[in-house]
Amino acid sequence: VGVEGVRLVEAALGSGLPVEAILLSPAGRRHLARLEGSIRPNAKMLHTSDRLFAWIADTHSPQGIAALVRPKTFTIETLVSGVALTVVLVGVQDPGNVGTLVRAAEAFGATGVATCSTGALGSANPLLPKALRASAGSALRIPIVHGLAAGVLLAQLRAAGLKLFAAVRDAGAESGMDDSEPRREAVACLRPWEADWKSPAALVIGNEGAGLPAEIVRMADACVSIPQAGASSSEGVESLNAAMAGTVLLYEVMRQRGGA
Amino acid sequence: VGVEGVRLVEAALGSGLPVEAILLSPAGRRHLARLEGSIRPNAKMLHTSDRLFAWIADTHSPQGIAALVRPKTFTIETLVSGVALTVVLVGVQDPGNVGTLVRAAEAFGATGVATCSTGALGSANPLLPKALRASAGSALRIPIVHGLAAGVLLAQLRAAGLKLFAAVRDAGAESGMDDSEPRREAVACLRPWEADWKSPAALVIGNEGAGLPAEIVRMADACVSIPQAGASSSEGVESLNAAMAGTVLLYEVMRQRGGA
Repeated sequence: VGVEGVRLVEAALGSGLPVEAILLSPAGRRHLARLEGSIRPNAKMLHTSDRLFAWIADTHSPQGIAALVRPKTFTIETLVSGVALTVVLVGVQDPGNVGTLVRAAEAFGATGVATCSTGALGSANPLLPKALRASAGSALRIPIVHGLAAGVLLAQLRAAGLKLFAAVRDAGAESGMDDSEPRREAVACLRPWEADWKSPAALVIGNEGAGLPAEIVRMADACVSIPQAGASSSEGVESLNAAMAGTVLLYEVMRQRGGA
Repeated sequence: VGVEGVRLVEAALGSGLPVEAILLSPAGRRHLARLEGSIRPNAKMLHTSDRLFAWIADTHSPQGIAALVRPKTFTIETLVSGVALTVVLVGVQDPGNVGTLVRAAEAFGATGVATCSTGALGSANPLLPKALRASAGSALRIPIVHGLAAGVLLAQLRAAGLKLFAAVRDAGAESGMDDSEPRREAVACLRPWEADWKSPAALVIGNEGAGLPAEIVRMADACVSIPQAGASSSEGVESLNAAMAGTVLLYEVMRQRGGA
């Protein structure tokens, strides 16, 4: 996977992942001092012109330095080691949201992240440039399994002893969206601090617009929703976005587990 | 202030603010059905071509509908009514972060937001397009005071009986940044759930890179920092960004106050 910009290259070098090559343009040389010590002496350095680099680069103002990193492959078992907190993204499509959630997952001590698909709806790949940037490099460090079908994964997590919590929107906030969520009758719906996060758990987060499919919510042990001001009025505040809501829920787990 | 796109126009019409005109291109007509009922019969409609609209518009794929809205002006008193929760942004420069924090402030029941400057460093204006979009329209609804000097505002909030909480980074996470934060000796530093948010309070959030200036932190009654995994290791996870950290703290206040 390609990793661009001095901060991400630094994160890649610090992650312990095998760095296959470092790509450098003249403009990128000034960053080398910062990275000295973390570049192995036998690292393969590829030199390029600033123009060629800009052409290859994915960012608007490229910094002239990039690295080619071989990501680790993780099994489902690695996601659930210890007192598991597995973050399961189900059709989260925006790379920025996926990256932010991976960053929050690492910050709040999650054991791993699964970026799953449901039906035809996939989650964005956390190792592609935009998501990787939004993760501030976290995607290079935390165990991630990408591309499994959500139903299959959740069945395995449950078999591994995890409680499954489905994140749903505050009831009042979904003005007119209740049709798509006939789920709440079946599964208990808790506020975040009412849920018991101290035993191994999975936090399941759905698509930005549509939320979680009903069949996924039905698999959960409980729903959690974040109460929001104005949510009961008909005008309704548009609810927190997926990344904000997920970050808040991960904080709640960390709080209940006694701090990071 | 100009407000573009069907969702923000809808938010503007629902905010109760005076809408001075609605700008419409042929492509924007299909959105009119959705807005019917909220547009007053005597509203001033300005018609334009799609090309002209695209030229005026700030977004990449304009929706052909915009509104001109007269924002309310708020006094400091309006920010602190009831059991105040005032969000004070001090030199938060990224419009996306300002918008996200305004959105979180509304969702978690804050009484108002102040977007302040410190020295030469101002906060982004929450009513300008990018911030307004990131706020999903919240900036049109929640009381906001823009452009005051942080020191002046905080002195007034304290005089109004608010406790001032300064958001600072998790100590371990600021690898090598300790020089810029000689503050912590002076002011008690709490984890979010250790702080008592039940009485009137202000949450003070600093610049994305530099955090809060020492003189602002010294004015605070306490610091709060969100513990983060890996923060004590030298490699250090880059901490949550300003918007994520602020969202989490606002959730904690809402949680302690017993839900939205």
